[in-house]
Amino acid sequence: MNTLGTSYRITSIGESHGKVVGVVIDGCPAGLELDMEKLQADLDRRRPGQSSVSTTRNEADKAEVLTGLYQGVTTGAPITIIIRNRDRDSSKYLEARWTPRPGHADYTAGIRYGEKQDPRGGGRFSGRNTAGFVIAGAVAKQLLDSIGANIIAYTYQIGSVMAKDVDQVIVTESNIVRCPDESAAQEMIRVIDEARSEGDSVGGKVKVVVLTPPSGIGHPIFDTLEGDIAKALYAIPAVKAVEFGVGVGYAEMRGSEANDQYIIRDGKVVTVTNNSGGILGGISSGMPIEATVTFKPTPSIGMEQKTVDLQRMEETTIKVEGRHDPCIVPRAVPVVEAMMAVVLADHALRAGLIPQVLGE
Amino acid sequence: MNTLGTSYRITSIGESHGKVVGVVIDGCPAGLELDMEKLQADLDRRRPGQSSVSTTRNEADKAEVLTGLYQGVTTGAPITIIIRNRDRDSSKYLEARWTPRPGHADYTAGIRYGEKQDPRGGGRFSGRNTAGFVIAGAVAKQLLDSIGANIIAYTYQIGSVMAKDVDQVIVTESNIVRCPDESAAQEMIRVIDEARSEGDSVGGKVKVVVLTPPSGIGHPIFDTLEGDIAKALYAIPAVKAVEFGVGVGYAEMRGSEANDQYIIRDGKVVTVTNNSGGILGGISSGMPIEATVTFKPTPSIGMEQKTVDLQRMEETTIKVEGRHDPCIVPRAVPVVEAMMAVVLADHALRAGLIPQVLGE
Amino acid sequence: MNTLGTSYRITSIGESHGKVVGVVIDGCPAGLELDMEKLQADLDRRRPGQSSVSTTRNEADKAEVLTGLYQGVTTGAPITIIIRNRDRDSSKYLEARWTPRPGHADYTAGIRYGEKQDPRGGGRFSGRNTAGFVIAGAVAKQLLDSIGANIIAYTYQIGSVMAKDVDQVIVTESNIVRCPDESAAQEMIRVIDEARSEGDSVGGKVKVVVLTPPSGIGHPIFDTLEGDIAKALYAIPAVKAVEFGVGVGYAEMRGSEANDQYIIRDGKVVTVTNNSGGILGGISSGMPIEATVTFKPTPSIGMEQKTVDLQRMEETTIKVEGRHDPCIVPRAVPVVEAMMAVVLADHALRAGLIPQVLGE
Amino acid sequence: MNTLGTSYRITSIGESHGKVVGVVIDGCPAGLELDMEKLQADLDRRRPGQSSVSTTRNEADKAEVLTGLYQGVTTGAPITIIIRNRDRDSSKYLEARWTPRPGHADYTAGIRYGEKQDPRGGGRFSGRNTAGFVIAGAVAKQLLDSIGANIIAYTYQIGSVMAKDVDQVIVTESNIVRCPDESAAQEMIRVIDEARSEGDSVGGKVKVVVLTPPSGIGHPIFDTLEGDIAKALYAIPAVKAVEFGVGVGYAEMRGSEANDQYIIRDGKVVTVTNNSGGILGGISSGMPIEATVTFKPTPSIGMEQKTVDLQRMEETTIKVEGRHDPCIVPRAVPVVEAMMAVVLADHALRAGLIPQVLGE
Repeated sequence: MNTLGTSYRITSIGESHGKVVGVVIDGCPAGLELDMEKLQADLDRRRPGQSSVSTTRNEADKAEVLTGLYQGVTTGAPITIIIRNRDRDSSKYLEARWTPRPGHADYTAGIRYGEKQDPRGGGRFSGRNTAGFVIAGAVAKQLLDSIGANIIAYTYQIGSVMAKDVDQVIVTESNIVRCPDESAAQEMIRVIDEARSEGDSVGGKVKVVVLTPPSGIGHPIFDTLEGDIAKALYAIPAVKAVEFGVGVGYAEMRGSEANDQYIIRDGKVVTVTNNSGGILGGISSGMPIEATVTFKPTPSIGMEQKTVDLQRMEETTIKVEGRHDPCIVPRAVPVVEAMMAVVLADHALRAGLIPQVLGE
Repeated sequence: MNTLGTSYRITSIGESHGKVVGVVIDGCPAGLELDMEKLQADLDRRRPGQSSVSTTRNEADKAEVLTGLYQGVTTGAPITIIIRNRDRDSSKYLEARWTPRPGHADYTAGIRYGEKQDPRGGGRFSGRNTAGFVIAGAVAKQLLDSIGANIIAYTYQIGSVMAKDVDQVIVTESNIVRCPDESAAQEMIRVIDEARSEGDSVGGKVKVVVLTPPSGIGHPIFDTLEGDIAKALYAIPAVKAVEFGVGVGYAEMRGSEANDQYIIRDGKVVTVTNNSGGILGGISSGMPIEATVTFKPTPSIGMEQKTVDLQRMEETTIKVEGRHDPCIVPRAVPVVEAMMAVVLADHALRAGLIPQVLGE
Repeated sequence: MNTLGTSYRITSIGESHGKVVGVVIDGCPAGLELDMEKLQADLDRRRPGQSSVSTTRNEADKAEVLTGLYQGVTTGAPITIIIRNRDRDSSKYLEARWTPRPGHADYTAGIRYGEKQDPRGGGRFSGRNTAGFVIAGAVAKQLLDSIGANIIAYTYQIGSVMAKDVDQVIVTESNIVRCPDESAAQEMIRVIDEARSEGDSVGGKVKVVVLTPPSGIGHPIFDTLEGDIAKALYAIPAVKAVEFGVGVGYAEMRGSEANDQYIIRDGKVVTVTNNSGGILGGISSGMPIEATVTFKPTPSIGMEQKTVDLQRMEETTIKVEGRHDPCIVPRAVPVVEAMMAVVLADHALRAGLIPQVLGE
Repeated sequence: MNTLGTSYRITSIGESHGKVVGVVIDGCPAGLELDMEKLQADLDRRRPGQSSVSTTRNEADKAEVLTGLYQGVTTGAPITIIIRNRDRDSSKYLEARWTPRPGHADYTAGIRYGEKQDPRGGGRFSGRNTAGFVIAGAVAKQLLDSIGANIIAYTYQIGSVMAKDVDQVIVTESNIVRCPDESAAQEMIRVIDEARSEGDSVGGKVKVVVLTPPSGIGHPIFDTLEGDIAKALYAIPAVKAVEFGVGVGYAEMRGSEANDQYIIRDGKVVTVTNNSGGILGGISSGMPIEATVTFKPTPSIGMEQKTVDLQRMEETTIKVEGRHDPCIVPRAVPVVEAMMAVVLADHALRAGLIPQVLGE
């Protein structure tokens, strides 16, 4: 339901316009000295209002630890971290129950929960809940740090503008779209600005890379690394495709081209190519783990769209008011990193690669 | 680990060259009169040796019920169904432990399980385990039948040959590649034959459609329908991308084009387009559920490839012997259907749409 | 780990002397108008300082809803309810890490979590965490109300004083030990006072009865009603035995005496006796569910006891300071009710007896 | 449902008079050279017809491995082990659906599964399913052997005859009731013979002791060692009470007497007494783990009992035919050992005390 993971288990709590959004993390080993500044930095990368390509709403999302730390160190008890929501005007959302916004979850939420759900700001269906994901991911990243793994996501595509493939050193914070290919970045910004000026929005892709990942984590059959990563990434609203390595590109390849052949470099077994994105048989090979995530365009657009008045069962139209991200992709980058971190921490713990008490 | 699902829970058992492969299904309601012929028909669609585009191995995969049925009807107890493996020569697989075949799981299995895994025929990592998936799916399909849902998968792409989009009536068994677009089908067969004649293999895509699915199943946040379907599909060996609706195509779309607008047809709320593949906010809308699955080319090819002798830590080469599918996609079609059925049956049971005792 | 249940799933959060204790409830149907006064009343029955037989510490445990309610009604989202802890002097607990208090968890907590656990007030091992259980139980009780089930626990034994068996009308709040047998109650109070005056403590038993329970909930084999209730009750600190019906008394019975024979009363099938405590084959029969829970005496006593200085590995002695309950049983009564409610709500939801959206 | 455990996870399959009973074990580390003779020996201790105090039915319960072993060694894949049932006459059970046998699960099974359950020999509710538990326990015992833990259960009480407390050396197979106190054993045999000669049955208790258990396994709050052990023991049909250490005896104790005080012996921290049964705060202390399990008398007795004809809704009587154990306790001894082993193996794996690949 609202819990994900086996050994590093996160429970999402909160609503967009309720008192708080947050997360409970169960299974984090004792003894991790949590760096709250790093955690807050990831939240700041996700928060609205940070640049001209994101919504102009400005919420200072401040993490507040309720449980699980003692003198700044994890104790092995569940960690609860929340962000208090500011008071917000929710009135415009109330009618969405009866005239569902196209592309949003209003309609399906209505089927599932009837009139009882919290409609304010999208409630449980709001992207705001990903703030809790970022918190859980920030803790997971610090666990992964302890075994040398490093996770970096970046904007790979906006509209039809794609980043060129980048080498090892990935700098994602040098521009507001978080694309390491600076010339593509400028073009992406233009594409987003254009969509916004027309009251429209645009989709895109995020690529996430795990450098020096642990090898041998994951399982064959059901708890494959791909399956668990995909499930976690689909928790992010607007995600509609998850690929590993060359992903959909495999369809057009021959086996002779697709197979990653083994060689020895610096005394270690590596593959010449990494088409598989570092995962074979559901288990990590030690090569970089690579996944690509496609986001649909923000459904909230300022243009008139067809909808239905569910009370009267009549066709009508709707124009979504308010300030919205014309492209969610740049703000989704830290969320994608977070979900990858959560799954890898879970599998690393399951495989016994991280001890149950750190620093002993 | 080897169990998937919450209310319809399947446990995969068996090894490729062991005594049996099979499945335990827990949570199937009592009172389902199981049609074993339909179940066997799905197994026959999956088995090797059925056509010129699949391997020429011929195994009669016969389902055998061990537990959970009484007088042909489910009792609410766990259902165990197995297929006995024929005796097979496993000698050629033994060396794969030390000279891993590119694209296969030999290398990662070795990291994970050391020398202890069953290497015969790929053991737990073999595609043969999907026979158990097909069994679990066949039972799930019969449960879904009782609420009117109908699942059809077909070959959508082989190499660069794509099927044209098809209308409601989908016939997939009229040709050996299981593609409803007959002219594309002939071209696909040619592409596969060409790859085989060169000792090579080729990848492709399967599309799966759920007609008249239940609406309102799934959850926001972690147990989204997309996430659970993706996780289940990634259990199929060689799957490297899972998309819903227009999938990766969303990246290049504008919101005004991407949003599925609501209208009324025949007194029911429907959407003009179905870009989202029938799922919004992780919950089914009632529109057809659509997913596309990309398979990498069969790793077993008759060409010489680079690998490493892990005992001597020396580079060497390998040429994989034996009869293998030059393209796994046609045989994967019933497996994709099965995993979709398993997830939908699970969510339909979770939502209370299927009673715990049928026919009362 | 810190989560219990399948369909009504509770996650315990907090530490005795941390910021908060509380609970996250996942799976509560939408549409329950939560009666916060009833919830608070159960918390008041559990809180310290309520009578002369409990500790004289006085904490006003006030429930505060963080998530999951909208306009006082559950939404189907996870419900987070916390109690803020008052500032407390924790200094005396710090040394317990190195000189473990007999009967407490100090020693085993040290083995499990090393120096990293939160030692203040017993941290995660404190009975204070049961305040979160009471909250989860209060919500579960209101769900069970909707299907007519009613849960009542009472003090059954203190030291060697046992309550006489009581009939249907059980009044537990008429005396400070919560024993419906008034004359036994007075004797129990005397026994507790005597123990306290000697700096000692005393054990006892709580009996819990579910009147008009749902029939047909539970499972054979592993998820038996007895097994799940027992597991939930063992979550309460100091519980060391859980019995159903005549419990340990069955050992001395003959089958002819033990079997509950069936008769018809008022057109319904009932049993002449209810030795089994309303559960057969792990499934409820509809007769009252009855369990008895044994609590060990409070380990904190004012007498000198042997312990070990773990840093010096020397034998030493300890005298536990502070105000403690001389008998935990009267305050445990609402906690036992709560855990019973949590399990029954879970199984009633699993059996589909409570709809996923109430009041539709 | 039919699965128990987290890291050592067992799924029970089969029916009393179906084709097979058995178990699937998931999570057993690779590299365990399974001693099938030891496993079979435990099955032989459980099987009917082994002595004059058990039923005179004689079934040779022979374990057959279907999956998970390669060359006699576990591979990390799920282990499936079954026992084929002999053909049996089930006709006499068919009527139990409509005239439920007192003390059996016929009535509750009918509420839960309607007419659909397998009624033959009690189906899923039969004690015969515990043969699968014994198999799972035998594998778990071999895992625990590798960390030095040793589990022994014995008959502690039959009717009002109790065994004297025994010292470290426990011999349980020297008499047919499996009681190490030889003089009590003779008296117990007499009590059972007496009940049988009167067509009646008798209850009793089994005590289980874990010598040199791992310390530091278990969790506070929900996954306490007591809770998980109790839940597993309640899976055994006829169990109605589970106690730890002095158990129900704690109710009459003072804290000064109940607390296990710490001393140093042979350089190790031990407790003077072991009233707590080796578990504090849900976590093992390293002292012997001790639990006592109460079994109700076998419900099948040859005397006339009241029941109800459910089709006609009329009161009637029943006399249960056939050969039945007059006391199930001696045959339950290996089952109690098995369930204890399953839980401890699970918690030892969760705590990382047993590696995922043995012998590397």
